[in-house]
Amino acid sequence: MAKLRVHNFAVSLDGYAAGPDQSLDDPLGVGGTALHDWVFETRSGRRMIGADGGDLGLDDEFMARGVAGIGATIMGRNMFGPVRGAWDDPWTGWWGDEPPFHHPVFVITHHARASVTMQGGTVFHFVTAGIEAALERALEAANGDDVRLGGGVATIQQYLRAGLIDEMHVAIVPVVLGRGERLFDHLDGGPDGYECVEFVGSPRAAHVRLARMRR
Amino acid sequence: MAKLRVHNFAVSLDGYAAGPDQSLDDPLGVGGTALHDWVFETRSGRRMIGADGGDLGLDDEFMARGVAGIGATIMGRNMFGPVRGAWDDPWTGWWGDEPPFHHPVFVITHHARASVTMQGGTVFHFVTAGIEAALERALEAANGDDVRLGGGVATIQQYLRAGLIDEMHVAIVPVVLGRGERLFDHLDGGPDGYECVEFVGSPRAAHVRLARMRR
Repeated sequence: MAKLRVHNFAVSLDGYAAGPDQSLDDPLGVGGTALHDWVFETRSGRRMIGADGGDLGLDDEFMARGVAGIGATIMGRNMFGPVRGAWDDPWTGWWGDEPPFHHPVFVITHHARASVTMQGGTVFHFVTAGIEAALERALEAANGDDVRLGGGVATIQQYLRAGLIDEMHVAIVPVVLGRGERLFDHLDGGPDGYECVEFVGSPRAAHVRLARMRR
Repeated sequence: MAKLRVHNFAVSLDGYAAGPDQSLDDPLGVGGTALHDWVFETRSGRRMIGADGGDLGLDDEFMARGVAGIGATIMGRNMFGPVRGAWDDPWTGWWGDEPPFHHPVFVITHHARASVTMQGGTVFHFVTAGIEAALERALEAANGDDVRLGGGVATIQQYLRAGLIDEMHVAIVPVVLGRGERLFDHLDGGPDGYECVEFVGSPRAAHVRLARMRR
């Protein structure tokens, strides 16, 4: 059965997935970009931004796993766009004319909008019927492949509370943010029913893979 | 200059240093003992409880570092003892007649009590004048060696807020607790001014060493 998976979700040593004071200029919050430094040291990460070079090895392997077998992506409106005014048509995401998804992307929002076809196979669809409807549409679009849940934090927490995430790869990176937005927060009792099925580390990230236990 | 160091402080993947519903029967909270499983797989950890065997390697090395060059220990009252009634004289800690410290231990409490000399060199002193006084007395007793801050969580948070911890070794272990007591919490803006100086992992724990940056 097709799965809903989270990949390469970076958190600081103190559990933050974004720094404090997020803004248009600083969408990941103060210090937050350091969470993703490891990505841009990998070959896959550099290719994603059109750059050469980068390391192979464990971190790169986890990057590669995040696209393998994925047929659609779901994301929250904050991951798709900044403040409301800028977000509405003609805003088409942070990723330029050819976003790195190359498959249907379902954006969860309260604001209906026509789908937008980008270059390279990415089509943004806007879902106003909630997280379960988004998952249903994404699974259908993925046509047997898995669905990746991109983020942000609040959207992942919604799916965790609903028990809908099957697998979750978290990369713990060696920075201390002190404040910001925690990944494992607002969970009404926690990411209950998940167990760690993989735990390996590079000097740049400790990779944790959590899987939902079958009940 | 002698330092104040935290060692082998275990937290779950979601940042908890103890599980929920701590009690006399379950001092580490529901699921909390799993945080320390890695300790009892090491040779040093097994020796500490009088058992043979155990693995050498990275985890054991970190255990050994936690006693090297330490001349005194500080702990909060919750780490020393359970509820008030049982804690007062003649309660002498969780560790039996010969506690594994073998040096002066300063217990921070609101309740004055005469010092207690145990077998094997451990002497429990009870400090009612606060965390700075405890540190001062421990540094004096350590006579040039470092002081180890044992715990629990609330005591470590007090010392972090005061900026008094020089080095901190946290072991992130591959369990998800979901609820409980977080290490990096109640910090009024975070463990500001600490940087990661070491980040290595075994299959049982990702070892993080944080050091206070010089200002």
